[in-house]
Amino acid sequence: MIKKTLRINGVDKVIVARSDDTLANVLREQLGFTGTKVGCGEGQCGSCNVIMDQKLIRSCVTKMAKVPDGASVVTIEGIGTPANLHPIQLSWMVHGGSQCGFCTPGFIVSAKALLDQNPKPDRAQVRDWFQTHRNACRCTGYKQLVDAVMDAAKVMRGEMKIGDLAYKLPKDGQIWGGKYPRPSAVAKATGTLDYGADLGLKMPPETLRLALVQAKVSHANIRGIDTSEAEKMPGVYKIITHKDVKGKNRITGLITFPGNKGDGWDRPILCDTKVFQFGDAIAIVCADTEENARAAADKVKVDLEALPAYMSAPEAMAGDAMEIHPGTPNVYFELPIVKGKDTKPLMNSAAHVVEGEYYLQRQPHLTMEPDVGLAYFDDDGRLTIHSKSIALYLHHAMIAPGLGIEPEKLRLVQNPAGGTFGYKFSPTMEALLGVACMATGRPVFLRYNYYQHITYTGKRSPFWMKIKYGADKHGKIMAMETDWSVDHGPYSEFGDLLTLRGAQFIGAGYGIPNIRGKGRTVCTNHAWGSAFRAYGSPQSFLASESMMDELAAKMGVDPLELRAGNVYRPGDTTPTGQAPEVYSFPEMIDKLRPLYKAAKEKARKESTPEIKKGVGICLGIYGCGLDGADSSEVWVDLTKDGVTLASTWEDHGQGADAGALGTAHKALSPMGITPDKIKLVMNDTAMAPNSGPSGGSRQQVMTGNAIKNGCDLLLAAMRKPNGSYRTYDEMVAEKIPLRYSGKWTASMNTNCDLQTSQGSPFAVYMYGLFMAEVAVNTKTGKTAVEGYTVIADIGKINNKLVVDGQIYGGVAQGIGLALSEDFEKLDKHTSLLACGIPYPKDIPDKFDIHYVETPREHGPFGAAGVGELPLTSSHVAVINAICDATGVRIRHLPALPEKVLAGLKALK
Amino acid sequence: MIKKTLRINGVDKVIVARSDDTLANVLREQLGFTGTKVGCGEGQCGSCNVIMDQKLIRSCVTKMAKVPDGASVVTIEGIGTPANLHPIQLSWMVHGGSQCGFCTPGFIVSAKALLDQNPKPDRAQVRDWFQTHRNACRCTGYKQLVDAVMDAAKVMRGEMKIGDLAYKLPKDGQIWGGKYPRPSAVAKATGTLDYGADLGLKMPPETLRLALVQAKVSHANIRGIDTSEAEKMPGVYKIITHKDVKGKNRITGLITFPGNKGDGWDRPILCDTKVFQFGDAIAIVCADTEENARAAADKVKVDLEALPAYMSAPEAMAGDAMEIHPGTPNVYFELPIVKGKDTKPLMNSAAHVVEGEYYLQRQPHLTMEPDVGLAYFDDDGRLTIHSKSIALYLHHAMIAPGLGIEPEKLRLVQNPAGGTFGYKFSPTMEALLGVACMATGRPVFLRYNYYQHITYTGKRSPFWMKIKYGADKHGKIMAMETDWSVDHGPYSEFGDLLTLRGAQFIGAGYGIPNIRGKGRTVCTNHAWGSAFRAYGSPQSFLASESMMDELAAKMGVDPLELRAGNVYRPGDTTPTGQAPEVYSFPEMIDKLRPLYKAAKEKARKESTPEIKKGVGICLGIYGCGLDGADSSEVWVDLTKDGVTLASTWEDHGQGADAGALGTAHKALSPMGITPDKIKLVMNDTAMAPNSGPSGGSRQQVMTGNAIKNGCDLLLAAMRKPNGSYRTYDEMVAEKIPLRYSGKWTASMNTNCDLQTSQGSPFAVYMYGLFMAEVAVNTKTGKTAVEGYTVIADIGKINNKLVVDGQIYGGVAQGIGLALSEDFEKLDKHTSLLACGIPYPKDIPDKFDIHYVETPREHGPFGAAGVGELPLTSSHVAVINAICDATGVRIRHLPALPEKVLAGLKALK
Repeated sequence: MIKKTLRINGVDKVIVARSDDTLANVLREQLGFTGTKVGCGEGQCGSCNVIMDQKLIRSCVTKMAKVPDGASVVTIEGIGTPANLHPIQLSWMVHGGSQCGFCTPGFIVSAKALLDQNPKPDRAQVRDWFQTHRNACRCTGYKQLVDAVMDAAKVMRGEMKIGDLAYKLPKDGQIWGGKYPRPSAVAKATGTLDYGADLGLKMPPETLRLALVQAKVSHANIRGIDTSEAEKMPGVYKIITHKDVKGKNRITGLITFPGNKGDGWDRPILCDTKVFQFGDAIAIVCADTEENARAAADKVKVDLEALPAYMSAPEAMAGDAMEIHPGTPNVYFELPIVKGKDTKPLMNSAAHVVEGEYYLQRQPHLTMEPDVGLAYFDDDGRLTIHSKSIALYLHHAMIAPGLGIEPEKLRLVQNPAGGTFGYKFSPTMEALLGVACMATGRPVFLRYNYYQHITYTGKRSPFWMKIKYGADKHGKIMAMETDWSVDHGPYSEFGDLLTLRGAQFIGAGYGIPNIRGKGRTVCTNHAWGSAFRAYGSPQSFLASESMMDELAAKMGVDPLELRAGNVYRPGDTTPTGQAPEVYSFPEMIDKLRPLYKAAKEKARKESTPEIKKGVGICLGIYGCGLDGADSSEVWVDLTKDGVTLASTWEDHGQGADAGALGTAHKALSPMGITPDKIKLVMNDTAMAPNSGPSGGSRQQVMTGNAIKNGCDLLLAAMRKPNGSYRTYDEMVAEKIPLRYSGKWTASMNTNCDLQTSQGSPFAVYMYGLFMAEVAVNTKTGKTAVEGYTVIADIGKINNKLVVDGQIYGGVAQGIGLALSEDFEKLDKHTSLLACGIPYPKDIPDKFDIHYVETPREHGPFGAAGVGELPLTSSHVAVINAICDATGVRIRHLPALPEKVLAGLKALK
Repeated sequence: MIKKTLRINGVDKVIVARSDDTLANVLREQLGFTGTKVGCGEGQCGSCNVIMDQKLIRSCVTKMAKVPDGASVVTIEGIGTPANLHPIQLSWMVHGGSQCGFCTPGFIVSAKALLDQNPKPDRAQVRDWFQTHRNACRCTGYKQLVDAVMDAAKVMRGEMKIGDLAYKLPKDGQIWGGKYPRPSAVAKATGTLDYGADLGLKMPPETLRLALVQAKVSHANIRGIDTSEAEKMPGVYKIITHKDVKGKNRITGLITFPGNKGDGWDRPILCDTKVFQFGDAIAIVCADTEENARAAADKVKVDLEALPAYMSAPEAMAGDAMEIHPGTPNVYFELPIVKGKDTKPLMNSAAHVVEGEYYLQRQPHLTMEPDVGLAYFDDDGRLTIHSKSIALYLHHAMIAPGLGIEPEKLRLVQNPAGGTFGYKFSPTMEALLGVACMATGRPVFLRYNYYQHITYTGKRSPFWMKIKYGADKHGKIMAMETDWSVDHGPYSEFGDLLTLRGAQFIGAGYGIPNIRGKGRTVCTNHAWGSAFRAYGSPQSFLASESMMDELAAKMGVDPLELRAGNVYRPGDTTPTGQAPEVYSFPEMIDKLRPLYKAAKEKARKESTPEIKKGVGICLGIYGCGLDGADSSEVWVDLTKDGVTLASTWEDHGQGADAGALGTAHKALSPMGITPDKIKLVMNDTAMAPNSGPSGGSRQQVMTGNAIKNGCDLLLAAMRKPNGSYRTYDEMVAEKIPLRYSGKWTASMNTNCDLQTSQGSPFAVYMYGLFMAEVAVNTKTGKTAVEGYTVIADIGKINNKLVVDGQIYGGVAQGIGLALSEDFEKLDKHTSLLACGIPYPKDIPDKFDIHYVETPREHGPFGAAGVGELPLTSSHVAVINAICDATGVRIRHLPALPEKVLAGLKALK
């Protein structure tokens, strides 16, 4: 133990700590400076940045032994407070610099250190600084962060008044369509928002800390579990195995399609007979400290019989492969698509036929915040589980039987989440927390380190795809044939649904009249497949949008014009036979065309034999909603202080608060309420009704409509005969109810027929065009994206700051998907860096979004969703651009330099 | 467990807590808002004040169940930060509003709540507000707090610029003699200073929480200790009894005078054979949480044989009393005073003789912060104990043998202390912490609740006194006879020294040529006697300064003039035969006289039969230092950044930092250093040499001189032949040493002869005159002090803000001593309120200090100490004033209303 005096945020503090502990831990866990976040814990993300003796350091890799006695330390708490925001903090807020906000304190501290030493940096210097200090953000795409620093610097230099930087409510008082900073922005910019790990530290002292005993192999039979030695370790309170689970010890996938050969009850909470994938939880150690829990977990002995591990769909589909779940074939779901006429004769007669095979990799979500949660019994005796869940009511139903708890005794709460991008559509640790809390009767807290987070949360499922187009002589596609195999890992949840997404989105965007194809879901021993932004579509579009470029190349026509001739026009239908609700593509292509031509010209001029430049385009589409008649509910309450809106519009960081507030404020505008009088109660099943999960860009449409409905009902009740509105007191006096349940169901939707995949699954779609400008270094094979343009039609825009942020950030993930991201090797892909997260200089500063705001009939005030759109196919534009630049067609993603080099070599 | 969302300091925070826990605990222990302090824990001190939904509440008595969901809470952290001070915080700093600073956050939050609802209060309204909200301060005497609120309100109303409120360095750059805010003021005003309980919360997670098994009787034999049931309680790590103590299991009083019949080894660390007083520690439970530790402590069974308890000196001196420490008589030390001629014949021939008996009660210290500490092994293998110790090196020697640790393996550190006023001159929990840390090998943390703090820390020892004066016809005192018995409780530490103080201070101030008397130290079973500000003198002066008024009354002369005729003049000596170093009293009396006359006149005019007013005066004296050749050492280091001063000038809250800084800055002024370049390293035996304890107002003189010496040595080394000074780099280049050990010993002092009490124990004294103006309600017997005046000669003043604060605060304790404070009944005197702490309205707003700055030859730059002076006899002025108003002479303190009423009745 060492004693040091550190000058923290301007005052001397005596610190007693272990010399081998990190400064980050000491700041957070001992001193309570939880504004400093620990993301990766290995110096790769910058969330833990602090300024020590005028230098920016990553506190998560700075040992206390190396912190000089007397050193000064500045954390986010020392930069500014909610009552006294620093210009950088204010700038972050007004530029939408915080989405999930987990990286925000690290970025703001980093920006402060930069501006302390360089008060007038240019944009490239800002990016250089963040890149050098490894500040990573997974949400924003970085551009807004540079904007924020540039404006803050102006204020700090006295060139702009802070009042001019601040958001100002327009004169008409409306925030719809504007750039109102999200309600959580102040807390995020000041480091005062408590994420799960912060809340865990702030639990009552009797809270037990958990550690998991996890499988270190991918497939095995369990012969025995010996906890005797571990139980004697210091601080251990209890060690829990499957024998302690009161219920069925299974997490159910809930909805399984009729043709599914499994029953959805395949995922154990704690492994009993088998290990199905690396990291599977076998036991839970409950102890006084996390360190003691982890040390004891290492002492649990698990006797395993190793089995062959099938680490990809083809391996698991091989004839000699054993059934991973005995009794259920590894290919447990098959789905045909049948639209129009038989394609075989059409292919034979087509003027142009192209075909190809594509593979989209197992994309990791790479959130800044590792998975975390806690549980306790509330005073009403409800087992209350806090997690990053973006599907509270869904998870409630998925885990209750496995835990063996009555549904009314289970309460789920979402913590502020440091990014999910869909992985939290799956239960991760919820059931483990529940089991531990039920078995001990004590509050429990569990956090994964980043290694656990990467290796033991779901991933985007790889698709192995074949596609064939048959086009007439004008390039109009008359027929498409497809085949896709989905590597869904060992657990079936939504695996059939994901396979359906292939039918819905391969070839989407074009009025292809005749389609035949088949998809299948395959059980493997690699990471289980969970949701990821644009679920199923990045795979689908990799096939159909790459193939489109290949067709254009074969025909010798421009890929934009080939698309222009095929995109939806009245009379066309989607691959599932649905008539699109709007036909925006022709207008969008007209917007893109001049930009595209200029970019092509620029690339031509700038290309050299060493650095080859090119431009790639593609289109992307996604539906807003779950399949079929999706619905949502909210509560709208008139209160003494204003209106309270209760919903489970869960937040990944996408801006649920801004979305709900903006919609409610728009709906309530007749009563003249100001935004600060609308209170949001969110994401607690005990306090808000079922608004459905935050997935599939459904919330702005489904919950947005429910909010509108609830607000309309309230306004109707408040409205007096003369058209004015009753006050709260008048409502109470007249005994008029104060709460209104707002509901909406997309009743116009139909489920897809599982023999043909035909149907109208979504009332509202989002449409996008993507254009990437790349430079490929032919010596190294490395691709740099130098410019990016998006044309988006997401209907009428609720909050511009939010939708810009969603698109910038989603495209950044598409760039990562195209070039670097993967989770394939369990011994290699174990960190942000190794998994290929894009850093600031990997995402272009020249990055533009143009909107076509076609109002949607079924969207509240004309709005669609936004979140999935930018990741539908933004990666394919990059892949197409590489081909445009070099002639190299990458069909197996990511386009790592060695693959590009191999392609270049093959061309010679 | 409940989940609530609270808007804390402007941002929403989700809280999970037990509904029966307090808001204070949740804020501090879970959320890390340690600016909110818990003092009494029962709503009597206001240290825990926060603003909830615009109302000031005491968070220590607010259960979480009563905190509304959605409530807004403002803590000190939300008022302002070091970088953005609120005007109230700045005003607190510049007015010296924080001494120990423990009550400061509560007062500032309270002031904020007041000014939020009343932007322009008058002084009485400020006092009313603080009184109503039970804001208690033990250090300041309140006046400066009212000043601070008044000025902050001016700034907040825009009537004063904040820059005009701020401290400004004078043009000459000198801070000596000025009002430089103490270095710790920012941290205290912002709630960012970590006191022991805060540091305990901020220890590494493996830290064990301790609870004591304590005796509930005052005297008993121990037959057995059964820990078996307690060991099975949840969270228990180890239970420690005397068998686990490696060393002698005794705390030694260190210095025992030759005539002492004990050996000083009478205080057990953990009781083995006997219980000597209520609260004695019998076992220590080490557990994961404090709650678990306390619950298990309740399960330890102690088999006791009850013995008669001797709760006062007379009881323990009775012939049939058993020896509390078998083998040592209860009267274990006796001390004669023999000065001049035999007094018997002089008394017989004296013109005027008066005699009387007096009792000064067991005054409790009533610090805002309860006792607290922690211990761990540092990386050099040293047992490191943090506590509130104001005597680090002394305690080191007192506890090392008992623990059984090599002295070089023991390190003591002082935490910022929320007041001690002397009780921490004794080891309290240090040895218990050491035993627990040695027995477990783990960091340990122990805090007393307020009940434990009151009942199990040392108290001012009551004196039972007899005094007799013989004066000539002019009132000149020719002889004094005295007898005093000191109830020192069961432990002997410094009990003999305290008895010597009676000899030194009864009759001090007057040149009494002939004295005979005897004092004795008595072992009892009441609370052990520890140091308390002005140690031994409030008792002494109660006798001699009451008697002086009785003499004046008997002679029919004015008490001021009677004193004027007797005070020290050249040729006079102190009771111990020492020639005073200065003769300030005549000048001081001349200063007081007009004020006194005006006050007397005012009282006469305002008196009514119901409210009788009166004026009382007295003098007080105290020596600066321990007896005899006291000494101190400091280190002065030249560094790259300035000068570092290392000392163990421990801080009660009196302003050790300001004292050390002011002295060093003055001493270093030739080199032109600014105060911010002088770094203080304080109060860690591993990092600073032995500057001696902070008791007896010795530090400004002893350590002040050592600082001057060290700085002089450094300057001499830095000085170039041309008179300029070498830089750090030049010193390094010339290989001139950078560290200088500054030392000073009061070699002119002599120890008092223990046959006669004669000697020159102190090189420097402090002199004071006190005048109280009181109003006695003859219906209720309640005395109100309406005005107070102090004339002080403490030599040249280092920091005016500090010495003003010491005097205001010390007099406030004198007023409490006179009127309300006591610790007598173990079942009654168990809270601040029950022990009679003065609240704001108990201390007058009309409260003036006048200085006579007579330079002291042996004080650094002419300075004496200050801390003890205001409590030497300020209570006696109140007692004399009551008599002046009513004719009632209170001889047995405190002057509770019922005693005054009884006196009034007896007069009729």
